[in-house]
Amino acid sequence: MNGTTDATLPGLRDIERAADRLAGIAVRTPLLESPMLNRLAGGRVLVKAEPLQRTGSFKFRGAYNKLSALPPERRNRGVVAFSSGNHAQGVAAAAQLLGVRATIVMPADAPLIKLNNTRALGAEVVTYDRDREDREAISRRIVSETGAELVPPFDDPEIIAGQGTIGLEIAEQADALGVRPDLVLVPCSGGGLVAGVSTAIAERLPGVPVYSVEPEGFDDMARSLRAGEPVQNSPGARSICDALLAPSPGTLTFAVNRRTLAGGLVVSDEAVRRAMAVAFETLKLVVEPGGAVGLAAILDKRIDLAGTTAVVVCSGGNVDGRLFAEALAG
Amino acid sequence: MNGTTDATLPGLRDIERAADRLAGIAVRTPLLESPMLNRLAGGRVLVKAEPLQRTGSFKFRGAYNKLSALPPERRNRGVVAFSSGNHAQGVAAAAQLLGVRATIVMPADAPLIKLNNTRALGAEVVTYDRDREDREAISRRIVSETGAELVPPFDDPEIIAGQGTIGLEIAEQADALGVRPDLVLVPCSGGGLVAGVSTAIAERLPGVPVYSVEPEGFDDMARSLRAGEPVQNSPGARSICDALLAPSPGTLTFAVNRRTLAGGLVVSDEAVRRAMAVAFETLKLVVEPGGAVGLAAILDKRIDLAGTTAVVVCSGGNVDGRLFAEALAG
Repeated sequence: MNGTTDATLPGLRDIERAADRLAGIAVRTPLLESPMLNRLAGGRVLVKAEPLQRTGSFKFRGAYNKLSALPPERRNRGVVAFSSGNHAQGVAAAAQLLGVRATIVMPADAPLIKLNNTRALGAEVVTYDRDREDREAISRRIVSETGAELVPPFDDPEIIAGQGTIGLEIAEQADALGVRPDLVLVPCSGGGLVAGVSTAIAERLPGVPVYSVEPEGFDDMARSLRAGEPVQNSPGARSICDALLAPSPGTLTFAVNRRTLAGGLVVSDEAVRRAMAVAFETLKLVVEPGGAVGLAAILDKRIDLAGTTAVVVCSGGNVDGRLFAEALAG
Repeated sequence: MNGTTDATLPGLRDIERAADRLAGIAVRTPLLESPMLNRLAGGRVLVKAEPLQRTGSFKFRGAYNKLSALPPERRNRGVVAFSSGNHAQGVAAAAQLLGVRATIVMPADAPLIKLNNTRALGAEVVTYDRDREDREAISRRIVSETGAELVPPFDDPEIIAGQGTIGLEIAEQADALGVRPDLVLVPCSGGGLVAGVSTAIAERLPGVPVYSVEPEGFDDMARSLRAGEPVQNSPGARSICDALLAPSPGTLTFAVNRRTLAGGLVVSDEAVRRAMAVAFETLKLVVEPGGAVGLAAILDKRIDLAGTTAVVVCSGGNVDGRLFAEALAG
């Protein structure tokens, strides 16, 4: 794995340090439950509600941890990130809190709510054409021109450790309920969220299987886990899960996930729309398409819950009203 | 006031006892905040998120407290309630948890989600025609035929005390944030929720003004407070706030509210729709029309928030998808 060794993988200590940095700053999101959702799922479901996180998604955790971990003299030269939206808002909010200038490179066709929110958080937004321009090249140019620090979306130990704080909270909150989960489902794009959560769960709830969940056409993590090496998605695939379109696992995230994950599940856009409607009706929670894949896997019976308790991470809620209304209309 | 004296009004001790009964059973709902919502409101806004409560509204608190306070030999004869929906679900869920039979008298045109959810909670639902039949007479008939206990929707000390636990939580959660609120806004129909919350706030945050908020055409509490005696709403009024259509304040709730409230605010259905859309976008929270009146009062500048911190109770999230989609469409 490009020379990735155990020593370079983020561990429990890194996640605990991230939790200390995020204490009182990130929202300790609740673990929600609904008897009606349990009936629909055929088992007990505890939903980790990251739409209620600052900026409406888990991405704030990793971004704030990463920026906090940078030496001030580097951080103060500003930060740059490329993102379809949630990482953009996470970095912008973290930079604003730390008094740092942020430039975010975003696709021109990103959901309007994500573009607007990123600007509202004080960041400079640079848009690009998703089909013709290379966002990484644009970001590198800004880095070389300004000396700013690039904040990667997932393939970074401090980003992974920040997202891993969700795993710590799941273990603590389940314990407070007197519950030991039988499995944990986590949405997956580049794999940073599931890498962090699975690292924390492996230490705090050893033996509890953690699964990544991806949309059809973007199931690179599931196939990479089976292949034992990172594979790419085929070009041209489409999904309503705009937050989960990474082309392949990261080097570091795959090195973690191949050790920690029990497997990868895959869901259809149709199942995702239904999961959004069920979250609306039973949890009163707004969940964006990419945030709802774990719930979709359960409702679509991609895994059998009979007699078990599942923790499902709902990772974000940044969705345009029109798309949300379409999901409600079924 | 029909002989209502201080001695019969619910006090802090009753609310604390309710909090003990509800501990580990009701959800301790979070106090949510959004920088974007703060900007729109022109002040700091902390939202007490009761859509995340069991059954999707605060009504579970009062119902569970009332049923718990009944002697078992009376409770075990079953309970009856009449309600347009949220009280119905609250009583049904409380009865189910306590192993008691529940019969709920609901208008045939109540939101489908509320009818279905009440049945799913194991209650027997008896529907009636809102324009031609008297729900109280139907309920009394069931009581006399079965010996079941009537659970009133708001005009009852144990119901008020149960809703008051929201006030205790607001005081504790604000304190944990290091914040002293400058005002508290609470949706109002019969006035049980605002009576309970204002009683708790008067003790735990003395001097902090609490306001009731009602929809236009159903502003009986605001007018009663000004008149110094209970007044009725004019017949024939309509509002999308299906949870806030009580015709007049309760005897007990008015006796409390005339002492505890700073005043009553009134909002339009249009402001309510916008508040629902803002809660969707900034809080990722599903709020039903009646639950959103406090947020509507702030966004519509019914009260000046400049330089202040307001706590707004969002009281429920049981709304049909079509109505919610209409609110999002503006």
